[in-house]
Amino acid sequence: MTLGRPVPPPLGTKFNPQQPRQAPAARAATGTRVRAYGATSATSGLVPLEIERREPGPHDVEISIAFCGLCHSDVHTIRGEWRDQRYPLVPGHEIVGRVTRTGEDVSMFSVGDLVGVGCLVDSCRNCDSCNEGLEQYCENGAVATYGAVDQRHGGEITQGGYATAIVVDEKYVLRMPESLDPAEAAPLLCAGITVFSPMQYFGVEASDAVGVVGLGGLGHLAVKIAKALGAVVTVFTTSPDKVEAAQRLGADRVVLSTDAEAMAAARRSIDLIIDTVSARHDLGPYLRTIRRDGALIQVSLPPGGMPPVPLGMLVGRRIAYGGSMIGGIAETQELLDFCAAHGISAEVELVAADRLNEAWDRMVAGDVKYRFVLDVESLNPARNPAAAREEAEGTNNLPDSTESRERNA
Amino acid sequence: MTLGRPVPPPLGTKFNPQQPRQAPAARAATGTRVRAYGATSATSGLVPLEIERREPGPHDVEISIAFCGLCHSDVHTIRGEWRDQRYPLVPGHEIVGRVTRTGEDVSMFSVGDLVGVGCLVDSCRNCDSCNEGLEQYCENGAVATYGAVDQRHGGEITQGGYATAIVVDEKYVLRMPESLDPAEAAPLLCAGITVFSPMQYFGVEASDAVGVVGLGGLGHLAVKIAKALGAVVTVFTTSPDKVEAAQRLGADRVVLSTDAEAMAAARRSIDLIIDTVSARHDLGPYLRTIRRDGALIQVSLPPGGMPPVPLGMLVGRRIAYGGSMIGGIAETQELLDFCAAHGISAEVELVAADRLNEAWDRMVAGDVKYRFVLDVESLNPARNPAAAREEAEGTNNLPDSTESRERNA
Repeated sequence: MTLGRPVPPPLGTKFNPQQPRQAPAARAATGTRVRAYGATSATSGLVPLEIERREPGPHDVEISIAFCGLCHSDVHTIRGEWRDQRYPLVPGHEIVGRVTRTGEDVSMFSVGDLVGVGCLVDSCRNCDSCNEGLEQYCENGAVATYGAVDQRHGGEITQGGYATAIVVDEKYVLRMPESLDPAEAAPLLCAGITVFSPMQYFGVEASDAVGVVGLGGLGHLAVKIAKALGAVVTVFTTSPDKVEAAQRLGADRVVLSTDAEAMAAARRSIDLIIDTVSARHDLGPYLRTIRRDGALIQVSLPPGGMPPVPLGMLVGRRIAYGGSMIGGIAETQELLDFCAAHGISAEVELVAADRLNEAWDRMVAGDVKYRFVLDVESLNPARNPAAAREEAEGTNNLPDSTESRERNA
Repeated sequence: MTLGRPVPPPLGTKFNPQQPRQAPAARAATGTRVRAYGATSATSGLVPLEIERREPGPHDVEISIAFCGLCHSDVHTIRGEWRDQRYPLVPGHEIVGRVTRTGEDVSMFSVGDLVGVGCLVDSCRNCDSCNEGLEQYCENGAVATYGAVDQRHGGEITQGGYATAIVVDEKYVLRMPESLDPAEAAPLLCAGITVFSPMQYFGVEASDAVGVVGLGGLGHLAVKIAKALGAVVTVFTTSPDKVEAAQRLGADRVVLSTDAEAMAAARRSIDLIIDTVSARHDLGPYLRTIRRDGALIQVSLPPGGMPPVPLGMLVGRRIAYGGSMIGGIAETQELLDFCAAHGISAEVELVAADRLNEAWDRMVAGDVKYRFVLDVESLNPARNPAAAREEAEGTNNLPDSTESRERNA
C-alpha cells in the first residue's frame, strides 16, 4: 500500500481504466475554457494548460479563483506516489475566489461573494457519513477536487484550483470571511481543517494539553487553532531554528525531539498529539509524552508507510493511535468562522505560476514558512511572460485537455 | 522492545539489581511456608517449591487457594520473554479461594468468604490513576501478583497463585460470587476483565457490533460478555474447527479470517474489535471490517511485536487503534457481579500440579478449550505423589526460597 498525506478519495472511487467512458456528447458542449497549471504526466512537472469548466448547472457556482494554496498532497498526487492518475491533471484544493455566475437554483451564494473550495467538490449525499455532515468519509467515495472521477458530470476527471476559474455545486462551497486576507485564508481549507477536525473530535477545550509534531503548513495552523481553543500547546520539532518561530506562533512549550532529556521531561504531559509530519518517523518518543487515555492522531500519510507502532505503550496507558482526514463541509465552515472570530490565518508566501515548480521543490524540502499560495492572477498572460508567449504563438502544448486524456488513457 | 500479553507492572517498577536490598530482619520472620509450583530459572519448567507468605498485617487477608487459572502471560513472564526475572518465581494471577485469616483492621472480608485475587496485589494508591480506580495504570507502577518488587513489604518479589495460600491487602481482594463455579470463575480475574474493560471504556451497548479476534481463553469470554451486553458479536478465527464452537458460545457470525470472500463481506460492519491474538499478525484484514469511528483494541502483546499498522485505513475511516490492560479493582468486581447476574464463567479444563508443564505446552500450542485451571488441592502431598515423595525424602529441591533468590540475584 502506498501512503501519503490524506486526500480524497479515500475509498471507493478507484479509477478503473476498463470502465466504459462517457460519450463526448454527454459532456457539456458549452463549457468555458480556462487557464491552468498542471501536469501532463507523473514526471512532467507543472506546465501551462487550458482546461474546460462545465457551464454552471442549476445548483452550481462559478468562481473566479484569486488564490490557491500549495499542498504537499498536490505533489504526492500529481507524481502518482499514491496511485496512478490520468493526465493532464491540475492540482489545488485550497481555493479562494469570487462568485461570477450562479445556477438558477443556487440559494446560498450571489455573484461577488468571497468563497472557498476545499478538498471535496461532491459526495454521494446519501450515506450515513454524508447524512452526518462527514462528507470526507463518504461511504461511496467523496469526489476530490482534483483527480477524481465525477460521476455526476459525465465521468470527467476533476481538475483543481491552479486555474483561473472553477465550477462547483454550492453544497461544497464555503463562505470565506471577508475579514481575513484571502490568500492567507486559503490554507484553512485543507491544512487548517485537517488539524481542526481531530481537535473537535477529541473535544479539545481550555487547559487541555495539545502537542503538535512538525511545524509546517499544518503544524503552524495547529498551534494557532489549539491556542485559540484554550489549549496548552507543546510543539515538537527536529529543527532548532524553529524553536523561536514556534514560540512566536504561540506555543507554550517547544521540545526539540532530538533532545532526549527534553523529551524525557515531557513524559506523560500531553492529552492529544496532532502529528503532521509527512515523512516516515518513529512514534515511540511521542507516545511516551502522552498521558493515560490520551491519543496520537496522524494527519499525514507518509509515502512508504510508518514503522511499527510500539503497542506496549498503547496498552500500558490505554492510548489511542489514529488518523483523521480533512473535515466535512459544515465543519470547514465552522473552522472558517472560528478563524475569523480569532483572527487566525496562515503565514504564506505568494508564488507566481511560472515559479510553481520551484515552489514545489522548496515545499518538498521543507523550505517554506509556512504555506505557498499561488497568486492566480499570475496566470493572466499580461502577468506571465511564458503564458503570454505561448498564447501569442498558439503553441500551448496542450491545446485540448480531452485529447490529452485520451492519449494518456 | 520485547512485547507480550499485558501483565503488570507496565511502568516504573523495573527491578534494579543494584538497589540496596532490605535487610532480612525487615521481613516478617513469622511468615508461613506454603506449597507452590514455580520456576527456578527461565528454562527450568515448573517444579514443586516452598515459599513464604507474610503474616497477615492489619489490612491483610490470608487466602487458602482452591483454584488458579493458567494464563499465557504466566509462560511469557516465567520464561523471561518480556524481561529478566528473579527466581524462584511462582506464577498465577487468576486466584480463587477462601479467607482463612484476616488482619485486625480488615473490614470487607471475613473468614470463610469466597474471594479472588487478580493481576494486582498493590499500587501506589496516590496517583491520578489509583484515585480514579484505575490501579492497573498506576503511574508509580502497580505491583503485579507475581514477579514484582513489593516495596511495601520489604522489597520482596511477589509470588503468585500456583500455591496453596496467599496474603493480600484487602483493597486488592475481590468478592467471588457464590453462584459461579469457583474454578470456572477464576479466569474472569484476568482473561475476563481484560476483555470486559475495553468494552466498558468504549461504552458497548445493545446492538453495537463487536468483533472478537481469536477464540482462546480471552476470546471465548469476550464472546459471552459482549453477548450479555447486548452486542451483535462476530468472531474472527483462523481455525475452521472453531466455527461451531464460536456459534455455540453465542456468536452471531463467525468469519474465517483466511477466507478472503467472507472477510470482504464483513467489510465495515464492526464498531469495536477486541483482538486477543497473542502471536504477531497482520491487522489490515481486521481494520477493513471496522466502520467509521470504530476501534480495534489489542489486549495481547505478541512477543516480537506487531507489523506496521496500515495508517491509511485509520485515516480513511477515523479508526482508533489502541490497547487496554486488565482492569481496575472496582471494575473487576463489577465484572464478577455482571457475570454472576448473567451466569457467565469460563469453560475450563482442570489440571493437577504434576501436569502443569504439559498444560503449559498445550496452552502455547493453543490446545485448550478454553482455559486451564490448576486444582490447587493437587499440591497437597496426599494428592500429588511427586510432592509427597519429595516431602518424605526431604529433598525438596528448593528448601528456602530466600537462599535461591540470593543465588540468582
